Amino acid sequence: MNDRSAAPLPGATIALNEHVAPWVERLCDEAAALGVEVSRDERGVRLVDAGIAAPGSVAAGLLVGEICLGGLGRVELAPGPDWPTWVQVRSSLPVLACLGSQYAGWSLAASKEETGGKKFFALGSGPARALAAKEALYGELDWRDHGTRGVLVMEVDRPPPAVVVDKILRDCALAPEALTIVLTPTRSAAGTTQVVARVLEVALHKAHELHFALADVVDGVGWAPLPAPHPDGVEAMGRTNDAILYGGRVHLSVRGSDAEAERLARALPCRNSPDYGRSFAQTFRDAGFDFYKIDPALFAPAEVWVSNVATGRTWHAGGTDLALLQRLWQEAS
Amino acid sequence: MNDRSAAPLPGATIALNEHVAPWVERLCDEAAALGVEVSRDERGVRLVDAGIAAPGSVAAGLLVGEICLGGLGRVELAPGPDWPTWVQVRSSLPVLACLGSQYAGWSLAASKEETGGKKFFALGSGPARALAAKEALYGELDWRDHGTRGVLVMEVDRPPPAVVVDKILRDCALAPEALTIVLTPTRSAAGTTQVVARVLEVALHKAHELHFALADVVDGVGWAPLPAPHPDGVEAMGRTNDAILYGGRVHLSVRGSDAEAERLARALPCRNSPDYGRSFAQTFRDAGFDFYKIDPALFAPAEVWVSNVATGRTWHAGGTDLALLQRLWQEAS
Amino acid sequence: MNDRSAAPLPGATIALNEHVAPWVERLCDEAAALGVEVSRDERGVRLVDAGIAAPGSVAAGLLVGEICLGGLGRVELAPGPDWPTWVQVRSSLPVLACLGSQYAGWSLAASKEETGGKKFFALGSGPARALAAKEALYGELDWRDHGTRGVLVMEVDRPPPAVVVDKILRDCALAPEALTIVLTPTRSAAGTTQVVARVLEVALHKAHELHFALADVVDGVGWAPLPAPHPDGVEAMGRTNDAILYGGRVHLSVRGSDAEAERLARALPCRNSPDYGRSFAQTFRDAGFDFYKIDPALFAPAEVWVSNVATGRTWHAGGTDLALLQRLWQEAS
Repeated sequence: MNDRSAAPLPGATIALNEHVAPWVERLCDEAAALGVEVSRDERGVRLVDAGIAAPGSVAAGLLVGEICLGGLGRVELAPGPDWPTWVQVRSSLPVLACLGSQYAGWSLAASKEETGGKKFFALGSGPARALAAKEALYGELDWRDHGTRGVLVMEVDRPPPAVVVDKILRDCALAPEALTIVLTPTRSAAGTTQVVARVLEVALHKAHELHFALADVVDGVGWAPLPAPHPDGVEAMGRTNDAILYGGRVHLSVRGSDAEAERLARALPCRNSPDYGRSFAQTFRDAGFDFYKIDPALFAPAEVWVSNVATGRTWHAGGTDLALLQRLWQEAS
Repeated sequence: MNDRSAAPLPGATIALNEHVAPWVERLCDEAAALGVEVSRDERGVRLVDAGIAAPGSVAAGLLVGEICLGGLGRVELAPGPDWPTWVQVRSSLPVLACLGSQYAGWSLAASKEETGGKKFFALGSGPARALAAKEALYGELDWRDHGTRGVLVMEVDRPPPAVVVDKILRDCALAPEALTIVLTPTRSAAGTTQVVARVLEVALHKAHELHFALADVVDGVGWAPLPAPHPDGVEAMGRTNDAILYGGRVHLSVRGSDAEAERLARALPCRNSPDYGRSFAQTFRDAGFDFYKIDPALFAPAEVWVSNVATGRTWHAGGTDLALLQRLWQEAS
Repeated sequence: MNDRSAAPLPGATIALNEHVAPWVERLCDEAAALGVEVSRDERGVRLVDAGIAAPGSVAAGLLVGEICLGGLGRVELAPGPDWPTWVQVRSSLPVLACLGSQYAGWSLAASKEETGGKKFFALGSGPARALAAKEALYGELDWRDHGTRGVLVMEVDRPPPAVVVDKILRDCALAPEALTIVLTPTRSAAGTTQVVARVLEVALHKAHELHFALADVVDGVGWAPLPAPHPDGVEAMGRTNDAILYGGRVHLSVRGSDAEAERLARALPCRNSPDYGRSFAQTFRDAGFDFYKIDPALFAPAEVWVSNVATGRTWHAGGTDLALLQRLWQEAS
């Protein structure tokens, strides 16, 4: 097998935060229609509330999903079997869009002392991650973004404290007025929607865990059923994971050897995990609310197809369990 | 149960007729591609013929569907089971978009004496309804639109007579050149398409009939199969109703109590009506061509899901009967 | 039966190459995101490499599909049964968009002597065909396009030689800098995608072969499963045909007599051909790699619906065989 790890990341020349700017302006210009509220904090940073005091919406979540992808993908509603509303996400630069941008990988924490109140923790996602490039992942991708404006998405129930915003500005090297932070609690419609839109990203993250050469992933499409948001944070987070684990379907196009493509297809679906079959919220509670005690192999879509464009072969593995999701999400009436 | 009737209508700050203006200009700019014809009457009112002398098209119907929603929703074709072509409609401001705008609720009539020829009757739909706000519904919504331009959609086989256009201008307080009237006979492709795109509106109208608090509806998606238009007006109208009654699927997101959400889900599907199971054209003929003798409970989608975002629970009720639609619409070949 | 052959082609007033210009500019402006490379040859003709040295992408293929339709239709990904990724194409001017523009009908050849190297052959498709109007089809359509810029799509593995580009410029009467040529090898992702997006065009071409009055086709929608591209040219071409022959579903709306509509529906599906049931690549090899020895009736979608908007009747014929496609395209894993 040839070593492809030195191949450059497809799309690496794109200035991601510049590219996504029209999507961010649309989110702000259409605030009333999308149910979001736009404000500036005292230093000029733009905050978009998509589900804290503002109601947000599914439509806002779809657009935030595209913002998370840096505008390098499409997020839409689509019909599907056994559940009414599905999210479809596609990208022809899936590694850059999903791992380089959408993945919620930037830890942003502040202690009680720093906030002067409650401690704060959030995972930042979206294009501005690539300006800061604080994560080891950026070294592996051998890529980072540069630019004079940026947008970050945070799945939080309250705006970030000043100390965290200062850190973002500093790490991204942005003037305050050039930074937009979008706030989407998982318990909100926008939050649930934009997390379910991560079905393709979850597949890519597991591909990375499986040491598949990321530069060999050339295209991707994913679908997952969209649950109602849940008012409890753990249940809300659990549902978005269940949508992907038991309803997520992903089609990846890769290049390289058939052996690697087949290995990826076999290993990718989440039914390979011993935790398969329970609600994620239950798994999370059983793990003492510690993500790092959960089998990493669980974080994967239910069903995958991997096509090798170098040979034209396609492997199919896993399968969805919509009946389980119906039991978890739906009451007979 | 708390009284939520005083809650403000989501999106009430949006100037609907201003918001939809880019969609209206697109309809006119793309007239040749959409098969519509744009003209000005003698006083300057813009008329868009989308199926009388002009052929119109499915594409025009999809765009007219979005215009009816005030640009606050998306109308697209989608694949589906057991019938080739389906319409998908979604809105994150469903009450404003569907009841405040799309619903065909403005009675516009003129006697023989007034027209100097045949008597005229049409139901106006779309954003300009909210400028006139002549319907009791606007009092219940406690909302109306204001602005200096407007667009009205009429399902008619001939242009409205001068006396009706005068009334529209007067009631909407518009200058003639600021009014656009879109004409879509139900017997045309555009007419059939934009009526089937009312599947979500039909659900909301029945929710209103069921005294569900409208301000509690926060999101909606609907699908219905798109039949061929029929050259007979009654059959054409009947088919668009059958598409919704036997093929319509709607997913509503609401807030409030579970009791109210469950009540809505149970009562919403049209199979609760004794008229369920026959073609709507037959029901209409049996009622002596009098809409008001038809059981109002019949006007509803076939299958519904109601999700309560306040509790995360979803109820599912009803079901489609595509085999019935195939018998009504399709010949074996 | 009335003779409708003299009816004008719907949409004939549209300047196709002018209409599609915004799509072409989008392809060039978004080159990095779409994986295409834009250059100018020595005389100023713009070349878009969508899969030769550049990687191209599915996203590029969808956009090239819309360019082939002259911007008079939509090409999107959609979910579907028994295969993950489907292409949906729709047009409300299907004859103009598909036959007048998208059909790969312009033979562009050059001998070894002319190229000074290898001989060259390609079939040109897309809007610029209608500027040259070299094909008998344009006489039958009684239509051609006029304008000062043009775009041509070529399914080739290398750029066209100077002699071919000269011929295109001469036949289209274009200045070099006003011509854009898009290169999409069938073996590439963009090439496979834009060919599968021809599922509706294939139905219209067979309707034409069946002597159905083209001006009577008023609307069309098609779907086909999107295979992985194949590195072998014959297999790649075979797969795109198989996608249409065994997975293609088309819904045509026509006007005219029921007898003609029913005749079209019965005759249209490809299962009427004795070659039905084998992979197209095998059929092609068995025919000695000579397209003209293959039964022309084979070039058709698997399943069709024909709706007569003059009478409201719909005929359904044929059927897909996704199990066959799975055997041809998919390995168990």
